[in-house]
Amino acid sequence: MPKALFFDVFGTLVDWRTSIARESERILKPLGHLIDWLAFADAWRGEYQPAMEEIRSGQLPFCRLDVLHRRNLERILPRFKISGLSEDTLRRLNLAWHRLDAWPDVAPGMARLKQRYWLAPVSNGNISLMVGLARRNNLPWDAILGSEIAGDFKPKPRVYLSACEAFDLAPGDCMMVAAHSNDLAHAAKSGLRTGHIARPNEHGPGKGETAPTVAVDVAASSLEDLAHKLGA
Amino acid sequence: MPKALFFDVFGTLVDWRTSIARESERILKPLGHLIDWLAFADAWRGEYQPAMEEIRSGQLPFCRLDVLHRRNLERILPRFKISGLSEDTLRRLNLAWHRLDAWPDVAPGMARLKQRYWLAPVSNGNISLMVGLARRNNLPWDAILGSEIAGDFKPKPRVYLSACEAFDLAPGDCMMVAAHSNDLAHAAKSGLRTGHIARPNEHGPGKGETAPTVAVDVAASSLEDLAHKLGA
Repeated sequence: MPKALFFDVFGTLVDWRTSIARESERILKPLGHLIDWLAFADAWRGEYQPAMEEIRSGQLPFCRLDVLHRRNLERILPRFKISGLSEDTLRRLNLAWHRLDAWPDVAPGMARLKQRYWLAPVSNGNISLMVGLARRNNLPWDAILGSEIAGDFKPKPRVYLSACEAFDLAPGDCMMVAAHSNDLAHAAKSGLRTGHIARPNEHGPGKGETAPTVAVDVAASSLEDLAHKLGA
Repeated sequence: MPKALFFDVFGTLVDWRTSIARESERILKPLGHLIDWLAFADAWRGEYQPAMEEIRSGQLPFCRLDVLHRRNLERILPRFKISGLSEDTLRRLNLAWHRLDAWPDVAPGMARLKQRYWLAPVSNGNISLMVGLARRNNLPWDAILGSEIAGDFKPKPRVYLSACEAFDLAPGDCMMVAAHSNDLAHAAKSGLRTGHIARPNEHGPGKGETAPTVAVDVAASSLEDLAHKLGA
């Protein structure tokens, strides 16, 4: 059994897609904008990997995900014919990523896992973003690990390994938990154990991983199922 | 009012002196050692500032406090005529710093403060040490900030400022809380607000700060008193 569990957050713990659609509508609709809010969420998220790749590849120095989200937002607004937003509106809109809702199994599953394991997010999100999501969704983290501590983005090995080091644990005593097989494949390469959570609706109904596409130590249908399978 | 509270830990939240004495006795007495356990705790703690100073001054690169505690332990053992401890015993003894007890007002005061403020330790202790103390004493941290994130030790400005940055807050929106006027004086120089907690018995009965020796924003007799004074 592992001693610590590290969690991917976007998609694995929180439903970014419907949350971003809701928050964007809440802020932009009163300003007269009428667009496809789910398409807006998908477009914003669509810029996520390319923006991080510029940093992972060494083209740009590390910066927090809040900064990348803001740059990505300004890239997609013209596609939806939105312009002239005030600085205050842009800032509030960007902080929509701090107000995402967790999938319903997360809070009860996490409370069980907390009794037995050290818990931390190992996400590409920055510390203040992680705290915002934890406060909103009762995520009982022992510490906030991940990209801001590592100074790089997953799936670079440094992000997984810096989390193990912060907890003073060997990689084999840590399990990365994610709904994304790619994340787990890279964690496994760094020596961590792996747990997959099915999130069949992450990118819309029926559009998400229902099962891992790589070998994992545990595959679960929810965080409560993971708690059960890990004896918590 | 501040938005986040940053806490010094050793002495301010936990009673390191009687805890280290108790843990050292628990491990060493069964091995036949009979020494003045409180004097042992004082000697171990006495090496704390000199060890950090080698790093603050740039003579040595940063390392975690666990590493310094271990080096300090090996320095003081001969003074107490203790030798020949096994690697396992040395390791368990060093982890005594992860098993310190909080002063009695800490858990109830912290629970109240959590309702209104973001909370983090800004300690010279490393992340795993902070998690150990939090688990033992129910410290509901939002994140573990401080020396390991900053790569340096208090009272260097980087440690205070990196904590503000991690929470995306201006220094003036953050309050450093400590039982040590020196810590607060340096936090204030970096623009943070300051809260003093009286710990009259930190270094033994009647040997601790009963009041701040520098100007502070709030002076409190306990964490519950601080919660009251900060409207929590």
